[in-house]
Amino acid sequence: VSPKTTTGERTQFRGDSLETRNKIRAAAARTIARQGIRGLRVEEVAAAAGVSTSLLYYHFRSRSGLVNAAFEYASEHAPSTALRIASDSRSGYEALEGALVAELDDDPSVRDYAVVWGEVCACAVYEPEFRSVLTHITRNWRATLAGAIERGIADRSIRSDVDPQETADVLISMIEGLSVRWLAGSLDLGRARELLLLTLQPLRA
Amino acid sequence: VSPKTTTGERTQFRGDSLETRNKIRAAAARTIARQGIRGLRVEEVAAAAGVSTSLLYYHFRSRSGLVNAAFEYASEHAPSTALRIASDSRSGYEALEGALVAELDDDPSVRDYAVVWGEVCACAVYEPEFRSVLTHITRNWRATLAGAIERGIADRSIRSDVDPQETADVLISMIEGLSVRWLAGSLDLGRARELLLLTLQPLRA
Repeated sequence: VSPKTTTGERTQFRGDSLETRNKIRAAAARTIARQGIRGLRVEEVAAAAGVSTSLLYYHFRSRSGLVNAAFEYASEHAPSTALRIASDSRSGYEALEGALVAELDDDPSVRDYAVVWGEVCACAVYEPEFRSVLTHITRNWRATLAGAIERGIADRSIRSDVDPQETADVLISMIEGLSVRWLAGSLDLGRARELLLLTLQPLRA
Repeated sequence: VSPKTTTGERTQFRGDSLETRNKIRAAAARTIARQGIRGLRVEEVAAAAGVSTSLLYYHFRSRSGLVNAAFEYASEHAPSTALRIASDSRSGYEALEGALVAELDDDPSVRDYAVVWGEVCACAVYEPEFRSVLTHITRNWRATLAGAIERGIADRSIRSDVDPQETADVLISMIEGLSVRWLAGSLDLGRARELLLLTLQPLRA
């Protein structure tokens, strides 16, 4: 085991260790989805993951290290990560639309991760220790979306005058706003999807 | 004094009482902007407003009544309420753009209210008692924006094929997403404004 520090976590573990880490990250994400970050007790996450509190601290060092790791876990499991897979028979536009619409879904496996994302953003307003991971993950997400947009421009499913970076930033902001409203109960899920499609359609070639 | 219940609060007070209520609402909004809802102690708000805890409870009944009242206070003071004033020499488009850009501002008087708005949305995910006021205020905000868009269509500063309700909903979602990202520190304020303008400009006639 050679622990290397990235974004407050240790990486490069062998199989067993990786499995334990994922079990803890999944339990932390689930717990945050249920009761938020501010009510999060490290002991409870350890119990939910079936590990000791000291093993949890060994892997994640601190409560905020655990939250950041749960956030990374949630973002790794977000539907739009599918855009990173190069082989897709759909056009660039269709892949982009499909991936973004899939982010707005009442299925618990999607909703929970959206709740974790929103909760980390909300806490980052008050707790600066969440900002660097948030910025890092947002940057990756933007690169993924920009890549999908470039692919759409190349296959002529997306207009050639669209700026991939700028448009990716607009789409991320829109998804975040729609998610906030949907999860807070001030916007119906079906309506949220309609508004997303309305934002996407002008990109179409 | 004839107390009437609207959205968990009592209204129709004479001058003195109204002043006290506003002092408490302002103190609650400021406290939420500093430390969030989940860390909010009613005693602390009472002390900041210079009133007794029992007077605070007399006016707002409960902690969630107080939070809802602070949220209403914040939304009454949001820059885009300026759109409700009919007399404006600018075109409908210019008034709309000006009001929305003003929502993204580091001035504490604007930022604090944006933080309160975001915090209520974030808490409403877990605490359903915030949802009805949130839905009610969002509906009013949408009506204000839709009215401004209609005015812009009438004075030909906004394209006639724009749907006022739908566009208002898109703009609210965009502002919420940009605010979340700006306040969480994952998006620069200047960039947030650029992205907002990018969303607004296609509305121009």
